[in-house]
Amino acid sequence: MPDTTVEAVLAANRAFYEAFEGRDLDAMSDVWHHADDIVCTHPGWKTLHGWGAVAGSWFALFGGPQQLQFILTDERVHVAGEVAWVTVDENLIAEDVGATVAAVNIYRRVDGRWRMVLHHGSPVAPTAHE
Amino acid sequence: MPDTTVEAVLAANRAFYEAFEGRDLDAMSDVWHHADDIVCTHPGWKTLHGWGAVAGSWFALFGGPQQLQFILTDERVHVAGEVAWVTVDENLIAEDVGATVAAVNIYRRVDGRWRMVLHHGSPVAPTAHE
Repeated sequence: MPDTTVEAVLAANRAFYEAFEGRDLDAMSDVWHHADDIVCTHPGWKTLHGWGAVAGSWFALFGGPQQLQFILTDERVHVAGEVAWVTVDENLIAEDVGATVAAVNIYRRVDGRWRMVLHHGSPVAPTAHE
Repeated sequence: MPDTTVEAVLAANRAFYEAFEGRDLDAMSDVWHHADDIVCTHPGWKTLHGWGAVAGSWFALFGGPQQLQFILTDERVHVAGEVAWVTVDENLIAEDVGATVAAVNIYRRVDGRWRMVLHHGSPVAPTAHE
């Protein structure tokens, strides 16, 4: 695949985490594809379907007390046609917690722009298998 | 998308869970695309990359004491070209545990067959947000 495609997917993924860290609902809205079939699974949460439920979850998270920062490691991009998925470890740095979340983010190219259609993050147990 | 495409993806997804329940490593091997860029995140585990590591994890799980059975609910198929992803709730029924795992499975159509390229399962907390 062309390097520019990988770069565009990585830019979309970066925009997602910048919106997350910045608690910026407008930026988060811009990252996602607004459709009924998008999916979001926050760590420990039930899976949410559709932009309405997903937007509501970000609104709730951004209104909460916890400011999250991430160091992203092992970011890997896979592209197949108009779909891309990124796997990444989100190493959380918060005031009182430090933890790793394993994540997969799926993007679709819609009108030339990579838009998020799925985010799934799950906590890695401290004693996780290597 | 044609119904036959959705049916073929659902059949691949069914084969995955049958191999899982049956602790059948040959069948599990047949489900997956054998490549370096495949990904598997078991609940609580670190993300595994490549068929070697992924196969090793199934070997370890199938050799363990716990026989897992699933009731799958809310199975939803998304197809975009040669890529498909299925979100599903795995409701586990084991001898001593009952729990729900939120999962996403990504498949690629390789030589006409839908092969798994990513599995990510994560525990839903008993007090999970609706």
